[in-house]
Amino acid sequence: MTANRRFTLIRRPKGTPVAEDFALVETATPALEEGQFLLRNHYASLDPAIRGWMDDAPSYLPPIRLGDPVRATTVGVVAESRNPAFPVGQWASGLNGIEDYSLCRPGGFTSPVDPDAVPSVTNYLSAVGAIGLTAYFALLDIGRPQAGETVLVSGAAGAVGSLVGQIAKMKGCRTVGIAGGAAKCERLTRDYGYDAAIDYRGKSPKELAAAIRAAAPDGVDIQFENVGGAILDAGLLALNPKGRVVLCGLISQYNSAPLPTRNVWQLIVQGARMEGFILTQYVPRFGEAIPELAAWIRDGSLRVDEHVDEGIENALPAFLRLFEGTNEGKMILKLS
Amino acid sequence: MTANRRFTLIRRPKGTPVAEDFALVETATPALEEGQFLLRNHYASLDPAIRGWMDDAPSYLPPIRLGDPVRATTVGVVAESRNPAFPVGQWASGLNGIEDYSLCRPGGFTSPVDPDAVPSVTNYLSAVGAIGLTAYFALLDIGRPQAGETVLVSGAAGAVGSLVGQIAKMKGCRTVGIAGGAAKCERLTRDYGYDAAIDYRGKSPKELAAAIRAAAPDGVDIQFENVGGAILDAGLLALNPKGRVVLCGLISQYNSAPLPTRNVWQLIVQGARMEGFILTQYVPRFGEAIPELAAWIRDGSLRVDEHVDEGIENALPAFLRLFEGTNEGKMILKLS
Repeated sequence: MTANRRFTLIRRPKGTPVAEDFALVETATPALEEGQFLLRNHYASLDPAIRGWMDDAPSYLPPIRLGDPVRATTVGVVAESRNPAFPVGQWASGLNGIEDYSLCRPGGFTSPVDPDAVPSVTNYLSAVGAIGLTAYFALLDIGRPQAGETVLVSGAAGAVGSLVGQIAKMKGCRTVGIAGGAAKCERLTRDYGYDAAIDYRGKSPKELAAAIRAAAPDGVDIQFENVGGAILDAGLLALNPKGRVVLCGLISQYNSAPLPTRNVWQLIVQGARMEGFILTQYVPRFGEAIPELAAWIRDGSLRVDEHVDEGIENALPAFLRLFEGTNEGKMILKLS
Repeated sequence: MTANRRFTLIRRPKGTPVAEDFALVETATPALEEGQFLLRNHYASLDPAIRGWMDDAPSYLPPIRLGDPVRATTVGVVAESRNPAFPVGQWASGLNGIEDYSLCRPGGFTSPVDPDAVPSVTNYLSAVGAIGLTAYFALLDIGRPQAGETVLVSGAAGAVGSLVGQIAKMKGCRTVGIAGGAAKCERLTRDYGYDAAIDYRGKSPKELAAAIRAAAPDGVDIQFENVGGAILDAGLLALNPKGRVVLCGLISQYNSAPLPTRNVWQLIVQGARMEGFILTQYVPRFGEAIPELAAWIRDGSLRVDEHVDEGIENALPAFLRLFEGTNEGKMILKLS
């Protein structure tokens, strides 16, 4: 038995999470049953989707139970094992919790990973983890980009958006990114190869729509939506016939009631498609994407920015960066 | 030259159209140029989409010009012709206007029809016309129904909805229809084979969602949406993983500003697809559907109800029935 610090949910947040919703507790790791193993978590992935799991609402995953550690994808090393597929010392990654040690059961979502296949093992929480797989399948499978098409990405400087822009460029598309603030917009064109960047801050819906029209003079074929609300509505107005809206995230409303979307009528006028992306439906196809993503990182064709904050005691402020927009790259918490 | 009464648009309606927006004028038919022909319109199709064409807004068809007759699909007989493909006496149907005679140009949307292939020539404005083609392609091509799935249809007693329910039943689906009022709900189960009918009137959004859940205990695989607004939102809550929302019409907002849709987040949670249907994108495939639809009508497997009002002077009240819900079947105006 080893001491295990766990960042637990003790109250369901109303709106933006606050310190009182959580408790950092210390327990002992349990004795292992046959087939189980204990993962020493080195890094945890902080993602907007975690906010949804804190609510007591039916979703694609059950709510985090009160008293349980906050659910997160982690990467770490097997510390104890009664499972021959996961020997002590093996690196592995999966959907665990923000805690020093996670108990992993056979048949769970934790898989072995090869730390030598990527420049940094943290990449398993970014470009070759859920984030990269989301960008890959949501863009390629739902968006189906064709060379010469225009791809509009909201949250374009974010973990998913920065990868989507780069993959769309590889496919020969014109890329237009939307982000908040001049600094992020500069990163879009400088670091992620976007052809044009739009700062949504300070723009009325009409001004935002006009800016999209100017940056996408041939209209938008694929709208890759990470934000929702007024940004989704503005993009819909620029959609081309048979356009595709990849509904990947709605970060603008994760801490509030659902925001209205007013321009779904554009889907009828353009014979366009809006499709939600949920990574769990793609688990059987992960093997198609991971080697390609890893190769792109190794050969430098995919730039991956990671923002690593340290210490389980900083879990909440690190998580809130996602909603404040103060992270520069995929948000990761270093646990040990 | 022959006297031609035309129901013209003289002012763009604000909200629900009123008499002052239109004028019934009488002009002379023009002399024909080579390739042109004159169609004596016997029947005009009154459809919700016409309301959109009255607005000065960019759409899949240009707005009706002020002074022009209100655009509508008509069926009639060629009265004069300088086009050998359309001899005098030939029945034809196409996108023309609410007027006694329409001037048809070569290469336009008017096609010959065979009055003997269907029980009534008016069927070319209902089940083997745009309405039937819409039900056919929107359900089969976008919805992709599989035997055993549940199909939820709003506006289920309407021209499109009544056909969608019947075609979905032919494909082995459970069908749930939403309509306004007890009389329409009775027609859903009695005349169109719906397995369950829901009267949306007097129901709060929560009650409507509960009624859908009760009528579709295994959830909704295909939501065929003709209405929008609160009905679209309620249906989204019952959507199954990988569900399909066929966005066919939004009649609830055709006389108003766009209504908000609040539950598009369900598309992400369920990995579901919402796709707009616009008939003009299916023109090259009409030949697949027309013989099958005509055969279903002839052998009695597809019930077609038509509501025929008479006289060009009744064009406006007949059109407004669509929004009042006082028509019982596909709304058609008999012109001569």
